[in-house]
Amino acid sequence: MSEAFDAVDVIVSKRERGELSDAQIDWVVDAYTRGVVADEQMSALAMAILLNGMSRREIARWTAAMIASGERMDFSSLSRPTADKHSTGGVGDKITLPLVPLVAACGVAVPQLSGRGLGHTGGTLDKLESIPGWRATLSTTEMVAQLEDVGAVICAAGDRLAPADKKLYALRDVTGTVEAIPLIASSIMSKKIAEGTGSLVLDVKVGSGAFMKDVHQARELAETMVALGTDAGVTTVALLTNMQTPLGLTAGNALEVRESVEVLAGGGPEDVVELTLTLAREMLAAVGRTGVDPAEALRDGRAMDVWKQMIRAQGGDPDAALPVARHTHEVRVPADGVLTQLDALKVGVAAWRLGAGRARKEDPVQAGAGIEMHAKPGASVRAGERLLTLHTDTPDKFDRAIEALDGAFYIAPDGSRPDLLPLVIDRIE
Amino acid sequence: MSEAFDAVDVIVSKRERGELSDAQIDWVVDAYTRGVVADEQMSALAMAILLNGMSRREIARWTAAMIASGERMDFSSLSRPTADKHSTGGVGDKITLPLVPLVAACGVAVPQLSGRGLGHTGGTLDKLESIPGWRATLSTTEMVAQLEDVGAVICAAGDRLAPADKKLYALRDVTGTVEAIPLIASSIMSKKIAEGTGSLVLDVKVGSGAFMKDVHQARELAETMVALGTDAGVTTVALLTNMQTPLGLTAGNALEVRESVEVLAGGGPEDVVELTLTLAREMLAAVGRTGVDPAEALRDGRAMDVWKQMIRAQGGDPDAALPVARHTHEVRVPADGVLTQLDALKVGVAAWRLGAGRARKEDPVQAGAGIEMHAKPGASVRAGERLLTLHTDTPDKFDRAIEALDGAFYIAPDGSRPDLLPLVIDRIE
Repeated sequence: MSEAFDAVDVIVSKRERGELSDAQIDWVVDAYTRGVVADEQMSALAMAILLNGMSRREIARWTAAMIASGERMDFSSLSRPTADKHSTGGVGDKITLPLVPLVAACGVAVPQLSGRGLGHTGGTLDKLESIPGWRATLSTTEMVAQLEDVGAVICAAGDRLAPADKKLYALRDVTGTVEAIPLIASSIMSKKIAEGTGSLVLDVKVGSGAFMKDVHQARELAETMVALGTDAGVTTVALLTNMQTPLGLTAGNALEVRESVEVLAGGGPEDVVELTLTLAREMLAAVGRTGVDPAEALRDGRAMDVWKQMIRAQGGDPDAALPVARHTHEVRVPADGVLTQLDALKVGVAAWRLGAGRARKEDPVQAGAGIEMHAKPGASVRAGERLLTLHTDTPDKFDRAIEALDGAFYIAPDGSRPDLLPLVIDRIE
Repeated sequence: MSEAFDAVDVIVSKRERGELSDAQIDWVVDAYTRGVVADEQMSALAMAILLNGMSRREIARWTAAMIASGERMDFSSLSRPTADKHSTGGVGDKITLPLVPLVAACGVAVPQLSGRGLGHTGGTLDKLESIPGWRATLSTTEMVAQLEDVGAVICAAGDRLAPADKKLYALRDVTGTVEAIPLIASSIMSKKIAEGTGSLVLDVKVGSGAFMKDVHQARELAETMVALGTDAGVTTVALLTNMQTPLGLTAGNALEVRESVEVLAGGGPEDVVELTLTLAREMLAAVGRTGVDPAEALRDGRAMDVWKQMIRAQGGDPDAALPVARHTHEVRVPADGVLTQLDALKVGVAAWRLGAGRARKEDPVQAGAGIEMHAKPGASVRAGERLLTLHTDTPDKFDRAIEALDGAFYIAPDGSRPDLLPLVIDRIE
């Protein structure tokens, strides 16, 4: 046996709460990528990591090993500074769509490598693919050219970027080992560091619709990721933001593109505009552009211009009509009062069941499916008004979607004041 | 999807310290046997069980589900009562060899289904296979006939006995999840209950050469197994016995057969004789034969007669010369004094490296390889005397075996009295 370590020894070491050495981590990540460490060994190790944790040193080394499993991109030849943003995922989180062209309109290059959705949270690529003609896959040469010309790219991460992470993520998804902070942090940061961005703003979601259900966990994840980025030479800041209720008034692919375009046109829901501007200011600050006001770039149409250039550069028609679902169903307000709660997880699961999301990687998504909300928590509502509109191409999906919405909202008597979390809960740098 | 449960839900439930329901356990064991639950899912579940534990109810149900995965044997048609013994495995543990014919000589049928060795502990079948002609595989019909005629059988467990356990054991072996008390207990007891014995004596080894390194763990395992057996209607007793130092004076296949035959001839090392008689008395008591003295059956040759019949019935020649290794190496006493320590694990690993054991299931073993000890802890020894004789057919193995023996023994000044554990530490019923 010419391998440097034995997989069982590494697993047992973590099982017994030991710290893995740098050499053990380098070996196990590489050997897993090569297929020498088997899936059933890596899943046992992932469960031991989930239950017994990892030190900051171990997480940093694990991240470095995943970066080393593939290629690293380099945008240092660009004439503009680079900044990127990553969200840990939530319901109705379409912020990437208006944010990337907005920041590019302020003179920063944004190389956003994105993914598809799995489970109840949507994927940025799924959303953009509802635009006729738009394609997610670019070569590195095309990506660099578009960053230089337009300043904004949203495209699929290539197979050569952190392949160890790709393999491990698919494994964690089927083995109940997704929710491990060291593995979430290293998965996100290995891709973002390998992507070659100079600075990074992390949007760590907290609440029912997010991976992290409580602020304590979210803060731990944010601190871990900020440390990983900073140690790797990437200026990194994290915001903890509210995911108790969906962002904006839509959850679903084409529905969210429509809402994003409204924001780029100077309108759109207040929370989407606020979070887009907050994240834009963080990205601009990270590259030293503190004098630029992104709100002006929304108002004067520059952000919309970059959006249209970006969509066209990837084959899409920004002026084409977006797909619309063939069937809708209205959920109406049951009584007069104040909407005090509209649960992100339940809305997300319902949208997913309507066809907006996928259960398995290979499943297709419906461009038009999803949920439109007609009120946000805190709003006064009247009995019989529309509260939610459910959209799908396949009406047999309504039953299970409506089931998922059981207990999703609560109407309190008129005059009630719901105790709502702020949109931005904390900032970590 | 027509499956009753989702594997990820079951894994997450145990990961979050939940109790699995009877229906979840039945499903996951059955679905794993059918290949619907994948190896990487079962190994993650096994790690979660190892780290978060299982209640007595969960262990009992898991055991029942493993029994239900295969066939159950039934010896109720025999004219004699049945008793069996199981050891959790140790170095030099050849007790099954003299014990089975001894108990049969006292009028009890012993249906011993045994296994091969893996790692540093030897396997009973490997030992018996060093006898020319002896075969481990019997059909159920042959087994029943031999139990009726001879009263004693030691053979391989068929593929149809608890197949879920066979598959799970192989998985645990490569995923660092062997040392989980719920999984060890259910693995042992599912096979012993399915084997159909009326009563069972468990020899739970404690110490460096055993799975269980401390008495606390060993007692927990013993109590778990006694409860499982009792609940399944099998009269079950457990002894905790000392495995700090090897049993007897030999570790290795043919070497241990030779020592076992010495015991059957009325001689042999004191500890082997004592443990054989203690376990025989427990097995006889379990079937109500308290008036029979097994020591007499050793003295008067009845046990030896049954041994010879048992070996012949399975094709072996009990009078044939046993294989002898082609090369030996002597380790000598370094100084006058008292041998206060002879470590079971180190001796076991050395014997394994000499060729007595296997690293992978499919590896062959050397019949003649192993270690002869010339003194036991507590003995007075003189510098230059032989302490250990190493046997192998492949002399290039001596180096790594000698390396394994580093620190294996300690010689204290003359007059020292080592603090040795008793052979039988505790009894649990």
